[in-house]
Amino acid sequence: MQVNFHEMDIGNYSSKLLENAVNEFSKLPGIGKKTALRLVLHLLRQEEEDVEIFGNTIIKLRKEIKHCTICHNISETDICSICSDTYRDHRTICIVENIKDIMAIEATRQYNGVYHVLGGIISPMDGIGPSDLNINSLLEKVKQDKVDEIIFALSTTMEGDTTNFYIYRKLNNLPVKISIIARGVSIGDELEYADEITLGRSIVNRSEFSDVFSK
Amino acid sequence: MQVNFHEMDIGNYSSKLLENAVNEFSKLPGIGKKTALRLVLHLLRQEEEDVEIFGNTIIKLRKEIKHCTICHNISETDICSICSDTYRDHRTICIVENIKDIMAIEATRQYNGVYHVLGGIISPMDGIGPSDLNINSLLEKVKQDKVDEIIFALSTTMEGDTTNFYIYRKLNNLPVKISIIARGVSIGDELEYADEITLGRSIVNRSEFSDVFSK
Repeated sequence: MQVNFHEMDIGNYSSKLLENAVNEFSKLPGIGKKTALRLVLHLLRQEEEDVEIFGNTIIKLRKEIKHCTICHNISETDICSICSDTYRDHRTICIVENIKDIMAIEATRQYNGVYHVLGGIISPMDGIGPSDLNINSLLEKVKQDKVDEIIFALSTTMEGDTTNFYIYRKLNNLPVKISIIARGVSIGDELEYADEITLGRSIVNRSEFSDVFSK
Repeated sequence: MQVNFHEMDIGNYSSKLLENAVNEFSKLPGIGKKTALRLVLHLLRQEEEDVEIFGNTIIKLRKEIKHCTICHNISETDICSICSDTYRDHRTICIVENIKDIMAIEATRQYNGVYHVLGGIISPMDGIGPSDLNINSLLEKVKQDKVDEIIFALSTTMEGDTTNFYIYRKLNNLPVKISIIARGVSIGDELEYADEITLGRSIVNRSEFSDVFSK
């Protein structure tokens, strides 16, 4: 049995300033005390001016950033650049969990509609229920007949599907087309390595050959 | 061949504030753009006040921290808490690479001497030569006859050994005992999993049985 002294007692800082900085960094997700210490020691080796820029950039971000009043995307103005783009199809709304998903979909350059950011997915384990998400503002848009199609683009996890079904039920009686992003074998994957559920789905929900290759 | 759009084009930020914050975080070692974005989005979900504390803690740290004028440890005063501790043996100096090593050795509670922080190890690949390290101030202490024993406690890597030998040669003609931390099989390790070099060393540099078990 090996006793790891590093893990046991890292709280032996020679300075309160150092300890405070390590504590602040270790509040970030996925960053433990040892990584935090490494980051803090790195900052100590940088120019004072650069560290000041680092700190102030973060403070300024949190102070000045807004959320788009239409889609809840992060924005510096009341309406984000996507929602204010007149070349986009504002009657097609893609529902995503967070702005990282917007960035991922935008990077594909395959989508010309707008988005609606839920701000999370229903996850009872993490204490996130429907009321914590931007669902009402979505229903409002549909009820005001501003939408032709809703595309669900949430994670293909249990929580994602729970959220899909919850919102689907709310939308069900409203006059809007409801679709969901395709699930299947990733492009470039060898079939033998695809998991059974994905492969099964991809057979059941198979596409018309000409639909795929005419594009 | 799978094309990963996430990796290809993450620079599609909806806000300059967001982009700046992500860039600042991704300057930290081991933090790429995607992790940086995750950290930044986490901060956006925190209270404005807490983010302000985070930013200011880092700025304050860099501004106010000092290095001990005796051992180069991080300190809030001119002389660090270890060097100003009269209960410690100031004639035994343990040479370490950085303050993380001081914390690791302090955590063992097996050492009552003082330290000397080199601030790195000789590493031509990273452009770090002897002149970048706190070596002269160490030699000065020895020349002023302030030291009985120097203990080398650097990493057991090629760079660590290069640094060990460099300083050893500088100290060689001075009246000081020079020792190095023991290298051998980690306590708790099974012999068959120890690497050959370590195991070989541990046989050649074997200890008197009673020296180990009388302690």
